[in-house]
Formats: sequence, C-alpha cells, structure tokens
Amino acid sequence: MQFTSEKRLDDGVLEREFTLGEIPGILWTPESAPEPAPLILAGHPGGLRMMYPRLAARARHAAAEGFAAATIELPGSGDRPRSADAEQARADLRRALEAGEPVDDEIVDRLVLPLVEKAVPEWRAALDDLLSLPEIGGPVGYSGGVISIGTRLAVVEPRISAAVLFAGSFVPRSMFEEARQVTIPLHVLLQWDDEYNDRQQALDLFDAFGSEVKTLHANMGGHTGVPHFAGDEANRFFARHLK
Amino acid sequence: MQFTSEKRLDDGVLEREFTLGEIPGILWTPESAPEPAPLILAGHPGGLRMMYPRLAARARHAAAEGFAAATIELPGSGDRPRSADAEQARADLRRALEAGEPVDDEIVDRLVLPLVEKAVPEWRAALDDLLSLPEIGGPVGYSGGVISIGTRLAVVEPRISAAVLFAGSFVPRSMFEEARQVTIPLHVLLQWDDEYNDRQQALDLFDAFGSEVKTLHANMGGHTGVPHFAGDEANRFFARHLK
Repeated sequence: MQFTSEKRLDDGVLEREFTLGEIPGILWTPESAPEPAPLILAGHPGGLRMMYPRLAARARHAAAEGFAAATIELPGSGDRPRSADAEQARADLRRALEAGEPVDDEIVDRLVLPLVEKAVPEWRAALDDLLSLPEIGGPVGYSGGVISIGTRLAVVEPRISAAVLFAGSFVPRSMFEEARQVTIPLHVLLQWDDEYNDRQQALDLFDAFGSEVKTLHANMGGHTGVPHFAGDEANRFFARHLK
Repeated sequence: MQFTSEKRLDDGVLEREFTLGEIPGILWTPESAPEPAPLILAGHPGGLRMMYPRLAARARHAAAEGFAAATIELPGSGDRPRSADAEQARADLRRALEAGEPVDDEIVDRLVLPLVEKAVPEWRAALDDLLSLPEIGGPVGYSGGVISIGTRLAVVEPRISAAVLFAGSFVPRSMFEEARQVTIPLHVLLQWDDEYNDRQQALDLFDAFGSEVKTLHANMGGHTGVPHFAGDEANRFFARHLK
C-alpha cells in the first residue's frame, strides 16, 4: 500500500489516497483519535470517482464517531480494466429492468459472482495493509453494498466483527446458502421503494442470515435516497459492536 | 378525567393514575419540562397491570427526552367488563396458533374490529382531556400496538402527528384499505421472529401505508424481545417529528 496524496478536511479528518498494486483506494482517519481507531471498510457499487461525495460523507460521519474508514475501487470499475463479460451482464440486466421483465438468475450470476470472487480477496489484502498502520486498530466493520461482497466477507474474513449491508443490488441464488453461514451482528439497510432492487429478495436474504443479532431498517426515498438519520443509526450500530 | 393517585419516580417523572369515566389510565410527565410537553399516547395489547412494567419503562425512556406519555386500559381488558364475543375470538385464535393452522380472516375480524371500534373513541376522549392539562401541549404521537388501533387513530385523529406502530398483532383485511389513507410519518417496529404474528402480513401492511415518510425497523428476539436501542430509535423518530 502506497500513499499517493494527503489532504486535511475542514472537520479534522485526514484523507489519504493510496494504491494497492493497481487498485486505487482512499483512507480517512479522524485526526484526534487518541488510540488506534476501529476501522470501517466502506463498500460501494464501483466507480470511486462518481461515488466519492457519498463515500466521503459516510467516512466523515463515521470519523465524527471515532472510526477510521477506507475504501478501494472494485474490479472492472473506475479506471480499472473492464471485464467484457461483466459489461455484457450489466447490459442484459439493464435491458430486463427497462423492459419491466423479471431478472433472470443467470444474468445475476454472470454479473455478481465473478465480481465477488475477484473483489473479496482484494478487500482482504487491503485489510492486511490497513491494519498494519499504527493509527488503525481493530475491530473492523464492513459497511455498504455490494451486499454479496459484504456477505462473502462476513463469512470468510474473521477480522470483520460487524457489518452494515445495503440491500441495493440483485443477489445470486447461491449467496442465500452463504448468508446462512453469517454469524456476526448485521444491520441491513433497505430502500423500500428502490427502483433497482428486488424487495422480496432482499427480505428473503435478511431472513436467511444466520446471525442471532440482525436488524433491518427500511426507508423510503428510492435507491439513492437513504435518509441522513439512517447513517446515524448505522454509526450507532457500529458503536454498539465495534467499541 | 379524575386523578386518583400521584407518585414521584426516582428519575423525576411524575406518575399519576386517573379514571376517565370507567376507564383507568396512567399519565407520566417529565418534572423538569420547561414548557407544555409533547404527548405520546402509549398503546398496548390490553391489561394495564400486566403491561405496567413495560409501559412505565417506555414512558420514562420518553420522559428523558422531554415527552409526556399516557395510556388507558383497552375495552374488555384488565378490570374492565369482558366481551364474550372477544373472548371467544381470542380462544379461537389461540386454538389455531397452537394447532399450527393458518389464522382465519373471520377470527381476526371478530377479535380486532370491535376492539378498534370501541377503543379509538376512548383514546380520542382521553386526548381531549389530556390536552386540556396545562403541562401537556402538542404535538401528539401514538406509540405501540394494537397496530389496527394505531392505524385507525392515524386516519381519524388529526391531532396525532406521527406514530410508532408495533406490528405484533393480526390485522383485519379491511385495515389495509385504511392503511392507504394514513399520511403522517410512521416508524413501524417488527419483531422478525415474532411467534404471535404473521410476518408477511406485517410487511404487506407497511407497504400499504400511504405515508411518504415511513420506516420499518425489524429486530430479532421474539414477541417481547424488542431491544433497548429500538426504543432509543423510536424516541429519536418522535424527536424528529414532534418537536
């Protein structure tokens, strides 16, 4: 992990861009944290530059509660090499949604499964490097979409102690079996009127999670309209489980 | 409304029992409220004496945020005269649940509709008297079950500005039409693994509510296991909408 830029934000948060091999990423640390800060991995649907305003807002919101936050670009997004198969699957998904047709499991599998396969080891590698920094301690939370990436991480990465999962993407059937293996505390955010989501599938996935402590928060406002108080509630969830 | 007893609780909350004609009730007011306090009507499934510990805990939790809270006994519960029809319907419901059978709409109608018809005017009459007290101001929220009572109140009582509804009881089919007429901000609490509830029906009811601002919080822990933080979140919902 190599830091490539450093910026002090007006609320006393240090924002550093880094690269992890070919993968760009951003780390936000609260300046005034007295000890190694717990870390939140900030997931997103891909496209760091486009997602930056929302990611930075989430990170600063978390920093105000004493959490560091970090994110990396997803495979096939932003400036990273495109995958022809993923682009085709994304086009097929868009076509089905625009036609108002049910989305074929096969399209979702082609879109999501290779992404999970590639992204999860990258997040774990980032975690190795992030936890070696003196200003970052444990425990670690994962926050965000893609919900299948968060689910796989919750199963395979023992250093992740709690997760806030955004139910804002289609989920391969095989992920339901993985969901049953999740045991860490979960806080699932669902936009009830999400135009890019299958609500019943999100509810079924929430039901499938094996965690004894799990909470679902559903709000109105469409795919990108998560209300500000929902971020406060997610922070309080992390405060309950990461401190 | 006649006050029949008065007690100062150790956290500076004044608890007064009252009667409204034949109906017993309890009012909790935060002692240190500087101005008329907003009021939360604390709904429950019936049986004030049995429900007292949980109602008092909710009221003190709300008082800490500056809210007054009040409750009255439901028709046919506690020391109030029983209804033979309601008792029969309750026995039929219990039999169906114990046999693991689907609960007939007709049983739910017999149990809930007459209760809503009788209880709602009583809550409105209590509201008339409570709002005439100098220590109580507006706005008013309703919090609790029976969810059909809360739904009807939200439709017919314009003085109620926001509601926290507990989705912990069976809902007559006809209430779904009423739910579409609700427009006030709603915060719906669902125990995901509630053994005395129909989860899909609760989700369908949440979907039916006409409110633009509505939130669903689902937690684990069974019918009576609402976590403490869910009460904090409900208070913050009222703080957003009643202050």
